[in-house]
Amino acid sequence: MPRNAFYAQSGGVTAVINASAAGVIETARKHRKQIGKVYAGRNGIIGALTEDLIDTSRESPAAIRALVNTPGGAFGSARYKLKGVEKGGHEYERLIEVFKAHDIGYFFYNGGNDSADTCLKISQMSRTLGYPIVAVHVPKTVDNDLPITDTCPGFGSVAKYVATSMMEAVLDVESMAKTSTKVFILEVMGRHAGWITAATGLAQRKSGEGPHILLFPEIPWNEEAFLARVDETVKRYGYCAVGASEGLQDAEGKFLSESGLKDAFGHAQLGGVAPMLANLVQSKLKLKQHWVVADYLQRAARHIASKTDLDQSYAVGKAAVEMAVKGMNSVMPTIVRTSGSPYRWKIGVANLTEVANVEKKMPRDFITPDGFHITQKCRNYLQPLIAGEAFPPFEKGLPKYVRLKNVAVRKKTRSDFKL
Amino acid sequence: MPRNAFYAQSGGVTAVINASAAGVIETARKHRKQIGKVYAGRNGIIGALTEDLIDTSRESPAAIRALVNTPGGAFGSARYKLKGVEKGGHEYERLIEVFKAHDIGYFFYNGGNDSADTCLKISQMSRTLGYPIVAVHVPKTVDNDLPITDTCPGFGSVAKYVATSMMEAVLDVESMAKTSTKVFILEVMGRHAGWITAATGLAQRKSGEGPHILLFPEIPWNEEAFLARVDETVKRYGYCAVGASEGLQDAEGKFLSESGLKDAFGHAQLGGVAPMLANLVQSKLKLKQHWVVADYLQRAARHIASKTDLDQSYAVGKAAVEMAVKGMNSVMPTIVRTSGSPYRWKIGVANLTEVANVEKKMPRDFITPDGFHITQKCRNYLQPLIAGEAFPPFEKGLPKYVRLKNVAVRKKTRSDFKL
Repeated sequence: MPRNAFYAQSGGVTAVINASAAGVIETARKHRKQIGKVYAGRNGIIGALTEDLIDTSRESPAAIRALVNTPGGAFGSARYKLKGVEKGGHEYERLIEVFKAHDIGYFFYNGGNDSADTCLKISQMSRTLGYPIVAVHVPKTVDNDLPITDTCPGFGSVAKYVATSMMEAVLDVESMAKTSTKVFILEVMGRHAGWITAATGLAQRKSGEGPHILLFPEIPWNEEAFLARVDETVKRYGYCAVGASEGLQDAEGKFLSESGLKDAFGHAQLGGVAPMLANLVQSKLKLKQHWVVADYLQRAARHIASKTDLDQSYAVGKAAVEMAVKGMNSVMPTIVRTSGSPYRWKIGVANLTEVANVEKKMPRDFITPDGFHITQKCRNYLQPLIAGEAFPPFEKGLPKYVRLKNVAVRKKTRSDFKL
Repeated sequence: MPRNAFYAQSGGVTAVINASAAGVIETARKHRKQIGKVYAGRNGIIGALTEDLIDTSRESPAAIRALVNTPGGAFGSARYKLKGVEKGGHEYERLIEVFKAHDIGYFFYNGGNDSADTCLKISQMSRTLGYPIVAVHVPKTVDNDLPITDTCPGFGSVAKYVATSMMEAVLDVESMAKTSTKVFILEVMGRHAGWITAATGLAQRKSGEGPHILLFPEIPWNEEAFLARVDETVKRYGYCAVGASEGLQDAEGKFLSESGLKDAFGHAQLGGVAPMLANLVQSKLKLKQHWVVADYLQRAARHIASKTDLDQSYAVGKAAVEMAVKGMNSVMPTIVRTSGSPYRWKIGVANLTEVANVEKKMPRDFITPDGFHITQKCRNYLQPLIAGEAFPPFEKGLPKYVRLKNVAVRKKTRSDFKL
């Protein structure tokens, strides 16, 4: 008898996480003998805890296909860390209760480091509680910091967005620098790892072109060195373009964005490494500056998604189901790079014990010795990940994105659960 | 005998100003009997003052064609206001000197309000000084604030970018709001007119979808009303998305972004209405917020340019040359909307005396009575301007943008000119 599956999105969403959802759902629909319905958690794992499940079988094949073109989390995602076994494990027990009530035998969790850990624990708990469930983690994170996998679905599209945006802004600044802005700063995501910052460097195709300076969270902030390099660059090329990580920190690991900015109301200024750097340039070097904080735009920009990333995002969703129906438990599909040039990849598999809570940082040899740019080795790694375009369909000048019906499944447990 | 032409880009560049350049150059190349070479000013009008001219005849037809796909100002632009006749008119005299030296009989100036005025003055000065020159203004401004023309080349592409970006960010925030960000703020350009802010409103296709609130420079800032609306929206829809103009100002006309933000170094915080609003929301409503300052990205985003805008940008360049060879002087090609639905347009003509220094604001009936959104009338106006896609070619995952050779013309005047 087929058993039902549960799918949930976890953590920050991406331009292509819904492609993974489509991969899971479309593939499950092809395995009717093993998998009954796919239920999605409304707002991620919270939907499981509160028994707020979405019946994806109520969505047409066309609607599920349209997920491939739609950014954000179609069923809602959540930033919610399950309370551990040390706190009584009630939340895990509740999950098993809900899964049991809906005959859920497959658990697909689409997220990053935290959710890999959750996925592992659910698999362990199901054994402890004697309720069999196959748990497979579907990788997703723009931070690109999951171990084992060559890259993380979601990252390639952010990388393509920030590289394209930087390239365009550089052409703008370059053409105005004679009489206007001399220093341009683009702040990007990546609080602990500089992968996205590195990707802005791809916009530089020839020496002398911007971006001239990259500021990585891995390299301790050095005000003097930064200002000297900006000054030198403006003198030499007429302008200076900078890609800066939101997670820039000093030698003591203190985030620059927490260094005491106050607004007009006297409140601490939130976020914003770019305006801070810009103010520094303005006050110390007296150079006109402009800055961008791209924030969510970078991870939602489905309109400029990487085809490679999109394909890989779909593939990990598909592979997760194929692994699950084979009974592979506590695993995560990975991307394996089988050839660098020409770029070729295939799906591999990792054990969740090797993945959970492990963070992959930028290798030091991906950053130039002076700490201000990426090396050729880094370019070779990044280049294929942004390759290929996969524009969504457009309607009346805007991308045609789908909103699902998200019909609720009738509740079966009698108990309410308080988060 | 054919006479040479001079073309210069002025003010802030756009995603499609180079399409106007291509329109001018390609059309001039078809009128060899009247027009010899097209010289471009390196860094705009400064190139004319310093006799730093670029010989566009040294560029291949393919390179000129590629301008259609390339953002920024291919010859360099300038923020430079010519010193008026009241200051002796030396700069205008110098221009005529340089034009005379290079047998320039046509002046094409590609810019906004200021440059329309400059163009008019050059035409007048050429008469005063007895050196005949035909001056045609080629309209360009993302601010969409030139009079007479239905829209301004450059605006439609920014509008498409901000509407797309808002739509994508809304899907992101909507899917995370249950446990994460409740209020999202996208700051856009338009210091004195709310056209770009209005365009973010196109992302809302159904009532209840974001953006829920637009903050126009035309509507005096009202903190209480704003906070009440944000609170109400979050309670009703779970989140609130806001499109805010950088030029937001209070009832006395004071810009919010100048209201006294101090950074860690004690310097006044520059720009950034979005972080200010976000801090306000955080401190007064205790709601988690995220914000974006898109800055140059919005006006450089050739990758998501509007096909309509691109076509119109090329068309005004082409029309400018056609008008010039007919001897039409002191004029500007305009966009005339001949039909709203289906949208149809043609090229018209305006006298520079009617254009120079006139600013077109948003009509009050384009903004809802409560001041927080756009009306259907506004949507009808904006919708066709973002219609159609015109993706650039891509290479290795990034747009393929051209950098011209920009070969200098040999100097002929003996005098150096100090700016």
